[in-house]
Amino acid sequence: MARLKPLRTDIAWSTTDKITIKGLDLCQDILGKVSLGDMAFLGMTDRLPTERESLMFNAIAVCLVEHGLTPSALVTRLTLAGAPEAMQAAVGAGLCGLGSVFVGSMEDAARLLQQGLPKSDVEAESSPDITALAREIVAREIAAGRSLPGIGHHIHKPQDPRAPALFKLARDNGFDGPYVALMQAIADEAGRQLGKSLPVNATGAIAAVACEMGLPWDIVRGIGVLARAVGLVAHVLEERRNPIAREMKTMIEEQATAHFR
Amino acid sequence: MARLKPLRTDIAWSTTDKITIKGLDLCQDILGKVSLGDMAFLGMTDRLPTERESLMFNAIAVCLVEHGLTPSALVTRLTLAGAPEAMQAAVGAGLCGLGSVFVGSMEDAARLLQQGLPKSDVEAESSPDITALAREIVAREIAAGRSLPGIGHHIHKPQDPRAPALFKLARDNGFDGPYVALMQAIADEAGRQLGKSLPVNATGAIAAVACEMGLPWDIVRGIGVLARAVGLVAHVLEERRNPIAREMKTMIEEQATAHFR
Amino acid sequence: MARLKPLRTDIAWSTTDKITIKGLDLCQDILGKVSLGDMAFLGMTDRLPTERESLMFNAIAVCLVEHGLTPSALVTRLTLAGAPEAMQAAVGAGLCGLGSVFVGSMEDAARLLQQGLPKSDVEAESSPDITALAREIVAREIAAGRSLPGIGHHIHKPQDPRAPALFKLARDNGFDGPYVALMQAIADEAGRQLGKSLPVNATGAIAAVACEMGLPWDIVRGIGVLARAVGLVAHVLEERRNPIAREMKTMIEEQATAHFR
Amino acid sequence: MARLKPLRTDIAWSTTDKITIKGLDLCQDILGKVSLGDMAFLGMTDRLPTERESLMFNAIAVCLVEHGLTPSALVTRLTLAGAPEAMQAAVGAGLCGLGSVFVGSMEDAARLLQQGLPKSDVEAESSPDITALAREIVAREIAAGRSLPGIGHHIHKPQDPRAPALFKLARDNGFDGPYVALMQAIADEAGRQLGKSLPVNATGAIAAVACEMGLPWDIVRGIGVLARAVGLVAHVLEERRNPIAREMKTMIEEQATAHFR
Repeated sequence: MARLKPLRTDIAWSTTDKITIKGLDLCQDILGKVSLGDMAFLGMTDRLPTERESLMFNAIAVCLVEHGLTPSALVTRLTLAGAPEAMQAAVGAGLCGLGSVFVGSMEDAARLLQQGLPKSDVEAESSPDITALAREIVAREIAAGRSLPGIGHHIHKPQDPRAPALFKLARDNGFDGPYVALMQAIADEAGRQLGKSLPVNATGAIAAVACEMGLPWDIVRGIGVLARAVGLVAHVLEERRNPIAREMKTMIEEQATAHFR
Repeated sequence: MARLKPLRTDIAWSTTDKITIKGLDLCQDILGKVSLGDMAFLGMTDRLPTERESLMFNAIAVCLVEHGLTPSALVTRLTLAGAPEAMQAAVGAGLCGLGSVFVGSMEDAARLLQQGLPKSDVEAESSPDITALAREIVAREIAAGRSLPGIGHHIHKPQDPRAPALFKLARDNGFDGPYVALMQAIADEAGRQLGKSLPVNATGAIAAVACEMGLPWDIVRGIGVLARAVGLVAHVLEERRNPIAREMKTMIEEQATAHFR
Repeated sequence: MARLKPLRTDIAWSTTDKITIKGLDLCQDILGKVSLGDMAFLGMTDRLPTERESLMFNAIAVCLVEHGLTPSALVTRLTLAGAPEAMQAAVGAGLCGLGSVFVGSMEDAARLLQQGLPKSDVEAESSPDITALAREIVAREIAAGRSLPGIGHHIHKPQDPRAPALFKLARDNGFDGPYVALMQAIADEAGRQLGKSLPVNATGAIAAVACEMGLPWDIVRGIGVLARAVGLVAHVLEERRNPIAREMKTMIEEQATAHFR
Repeated sequence: MARLKPLRTDIAWSTTDKITIKGLDLCQDILGKVSLGDMAFLGMTDRLPTERESLMFNAIAVCLVEHGLTPSALVTRLTLAGAPEAMQAAVGAGLCGLGSVFVGSMEDAARLLQQGLPKSDVEAESSPDITALAREIVAREIAAGRSLPGIGHHIHKPQDPRAPALFKLARDNGFDGPYVALMQAIADEAGRQLGKSLPVNATGAIAAVACEMGLPWDIVRGIGVLARAVGLVAHVLEERRNPIAREMKTMIEEQATAHFR
């Protein structure tokens, strides 16, 4: 028999009369005192947020809850049409598309920022030259044929309105540090090197603010995932009250098979 | 070509410079002002909660975020082990198990309460006889061979501690109306008719409070789904930092195939 | 610590040099000898099919592989558009909609047949009166307000062409026994009692044939699930070669939010 | 309104009385004549397989159906325990873990082979020097810090028995061409350069044979996905007949939270 590492979790455990989550008693310390967004922060950091962190973290999560009939929302609705008894699977299916194309760009941006500007550099006495760093990152990524995450938007032009709104909140609450500066410098520099306006978009702003809050880049996508679950539940409700999935399916099928008819 | 009903959504829409969600401007009215839990309430009701509603709604959602290594948490971790690049699918897979057995019982309890005590009866001048109603419901469900949802718990004995905690919050915030009374009366009556203690559990308390808040029973499961998504993201992070999925798999496989060896 | 039932699986196990599946050596007994469809039969029955069973089982599975741009196919394509790196989750999401509405009706029909005509009755010396049984079942279901599964079709009129094709194969291969007769009698009787033509559809024919083959009703949906997985992989490939998901999304969103503009 | 590319699918379409799949009439040309495995081949290639292709394709698919209590099988069982009414979602959730770690290595191996030996080289008059090519590929991958896909196995030692079994079938059926040779040469060369035995494993053999059959590398993972769906349905059935999910969950949770108690 294989020698196994003992299994261990430190998130939560319960006895017959108590549920403990990250060291807090659910019934005494959490219920009525901690909001849903703050629970998400607790899950990602092992502590409750300060008031400013709470405001900022909830803002970036809320920003990702809803964007209308996204592919994810359509998936949830189409799934519900076939399995109305399993709304949990309709939401689960909807989450499956939050991959590299949209929500993944938040993760990519956060990684670019954290790898470009490691925590040790931020904490060093001499502040890093953000402009030079941005120039170097942009040149490197362009040379490698990679697209730069967190900038530009195919719908929101000239600028994704969520980015300045989030950056304003970041300023008002003390989160406008070197990562926000670097993200903006990358956008400026990419615009210059590529010869077109590429302002920071919502995913870039969220990534930058998440870095300011000390969240590791590899959990940043998780903010999008949990936020979108909140949004998809509203689509379940609307699909039940005013269904569109069947019509949508018929319309698409008719159009896509018209060349056969 | 089939005549189709026009497709329509009223949740959200966007232009190049604005995202509107349930009539609110995301950047002006929501970011920095509305928390994640309140967004969930907005998605289920078409309006922002009052302060008391916010406290109560966040409490019931928070109550469902985390319960340790649940089957859902194990699913998320096992899925992540095979596809670490797709955490969104690991969370999505984890949600798929929130069906009739656990989270579904919230829905069942809410339906039982809303069908037993329709809104019109609640709003009628003469208040309904809650005890008689509970007696009738319990007798009918037992006679039909159905188990009563929202009462008893296989681990939390003698009582699920979340239920009194939620009921206290309900009292403190004005949500201890007829549905809370009916849920408790059903538990008492079931205990009497079945001859064992079956106090209200967390799902029963959540269902009752959700009814007090006017949420339709068929969206109550959604609170569990979105809350659990928040919890599962924390399991993604822990599985990355301290993985247990492979050991778990080896341990189970060895034990389950021992009779062959 | 809780006393637990020992875990046990009898499907498969492996040693360093051998993989055993349902008692067969994968490398010696299966590879090159057993087809994919026959493996599915093995998984559902614990033995390999006879030649006739193989032909019949493959036919019912093949019948469910593909039906164009179904909601499931759209889900797979929309999910792939967001997470092209995770085709497994795109297929997994597509399967989530195979619930009560479409594939579930196969299960409902198989249950109706097996509960109406238990194996013991089939094996009894005196053959059951199929017509009387059908009349009774139809009357009971209509009285209970339930719709009868496996009959009628919203597109394929006057008749789903798959049903007679499957029934012909059943006759040619010795599977046209009492369950096929009962399914057809139910369709006739329902047509009579409801006053419109309601011939057996594909799901009804599959259910009847599956009953003839001795498959338990609660696994019949599984044939649809595995068959559709085969079909969804082809949609992944087509979506990669000639993507439609983004256009589809834009078209739907524009139409569904037109009332705002 | 955006100008959109017209939507188009060429997989399947139907009229009231006919279902056409890849140009074949489902009822006339497919049912009773085409097996499930051959339908999968049709979906990936736009034509039915020859007899030898059928045998070979079914063998590689069958090889991936079942490997006991894999993480995917555990996911399906745990999901079913919470949502027994939604077996389709239990199978869908199980598929979500077929990512980069296991099934993905088939895709990686197929890509390595097809990029190392493009079709044009295979079809050129002078045959490529396989040994030199393998040496070059292995050196390049090692230098880049990438692990070589399709070789070695953590359980099946000294050799995964599926690889020689598949290679024998490939020889017997005319599929032992340059890709099989290159895969074996890569294993030999990797063993030499890394100083340990690293024979071709099942995923490497499947990748090589898939290349011989002309399947594009980016659909090779799909064979694993559809095959595993077949296997997971058998786990649904066993979990229903002899459930292990709850015991498994209790066992893991007790062990993983023992340090708290």
